[in-house]
Amino acid sequence: MQSLDELRQRLRAFATERDWEQFHSPKNLAMALIVEAGELVEHFQWLTQAQSLTLAPDKRELVAQELADVLIYLVRLADRLDVDLLAAAERKLALNAEKYPAERARGSARKYDES
Amino acid sequence: MQSLDELRQRLRAFATERDWEQFHSPKNLAMALIVEAGELVEHFQWLTQAQSLTLAPDKRELVAQELADVLIYLVRLADRLDVDLLAAAERKLALNAEKYPAERARGSARKYDES
Amino acid sequence: MQSLDELRQRLRAFATERDWEQFHSPKNLAMALIVEAGELVEHFQWLTQAQSLTLAPDKRELVAQELADVLIYLVRLADRLDVDLLAAAERKLALNAEKYPAERARGSARKYDES
Amino acid sequence: MQSLDELRQRLRAFATERDWEQFHSPKNLAMALIVEAGELVEHFQWLTQAQSLTLAPDKRELVAQELADVLIYLVRLADRLDVDLLAAAERKLALNAEKYPAERARGSARKYDES
Repeated sequence: MQSLDELRQRLRAFATERDWEQFHSPKNLAMALIVEAGELVEHFQWLTQAQSLTLAPDKRELVAQELADVLIYLVRLADRLDVDLLAAAERKLALNAEKYPAERARGSARKYDES
Repeated sequence: MQSLDELRQRLRAFATERDWEQFHSPKNLAMALIVEAGELVEHFQWLTQAQSLTLAPDKRELVAQELADVLIYLVRLADRLDVDLLAAAERKLALNAEKYPAERARGSARKYDES
Repeated sequence: MQSLDELRQRLRAFATERDWEQFHSPKNLAMALIVEAGELVEHFQWLTQAQSLTLAPDKRELVAQELADVLIYLVRLADRLDVDLLAAAERKLALNAEKYPAERARGSARKYDES
Repeated sequence: MQSLDELRQRLRAFATERDWEQFHSPKNLAMALIVEAGELVEHFQWLTQAQSLTLAPDKRELVAQELADVLIYLVRLADRLDVDLLAAAERKLALNAEKYPAERARGSARKYDES
């Protein structure tokens, strides 16, 4: 797979071949996405932060599959809403660069120490 | 932005410039991802499925920003775990093609009607 | 089981007997709670709203178990933070009554039709 | 507020007075619940486990309000499905006692160290 756009096209074909568009409303796809995000979180819930950085290979592959599931529903949902994901990410990065200037955000960024 | 890989590199630089790696454990990033997924779901929670397909332009842009936030944490998390997202999605699609053969899954796929 | 308070005490004893307090930081318990919430959402993700109101008995029991799991982590988390759940709910209801006066919120509450 | 049952009755009256039953399908309420769970998780996402145990008073009150929101949607959802939450929790505790016998689960319960 070379790109997000190729993934988008393959997922669309996959759904069409199975007549699944009827289930793929944005509402339902948003639910499916957060369900997969929950399965991702489950792998980390009892780990320390340090442990979460050094997963055993088999665990890491399971996590990779959950990451893939989140990506799949994310791309499918964006396609149904006709949203260009990379363009949206670019807009968001520009907003974040304004919100968290590097010189002020170093290490003790308010985002992280306000609590 | 041309590719997921470019996004990955820009997010890594963004975190490094702000000394944020210390906060970006996979455990924390998985939490941040599901928080953004929740903000995405919030836009759809009281809508009918039909309404979720025809969002007003301003609402659609808000949803696009939430999709971007999910993508950003997904890419960042995959980077911290050294997982290639597109390759993982490709493996997952192959598994799904076996699990849901097109001829048997049409419309009434067990996945969808088991309940 | 007669009350939330009895549940709180039984969950505390359950954790103590197993030496699980070390895993039950509020951070971890919040993760466990949302993981269970995701399992709950999974049961509804492909259903129409009408279907979600008329679950088959076996499905309804599975959903009841997920509801119980959410409650269990919610009570455990509140206990670790020394929060009285019913008192907090009472404060929240008072806030909501101000925010959504009955005469103005009828049917077309801004909360529901702003999108 | 004296009990979960009182909360259930007050929430039902609150929805009826505002003609909100039409929005309160189990599908929608499950979405609302996980959205609130996400807002809860947000308070903990960048904290260490130790920090999550010692919240400042104002932060703790914000967390208490999120716990209340989760409880409110949980009770409302159970009511719509005619599920008795405390009875379901009792059934679940019995299952957990079988699954994690105290003598075998001490400290190093498989649940916690399998990863």
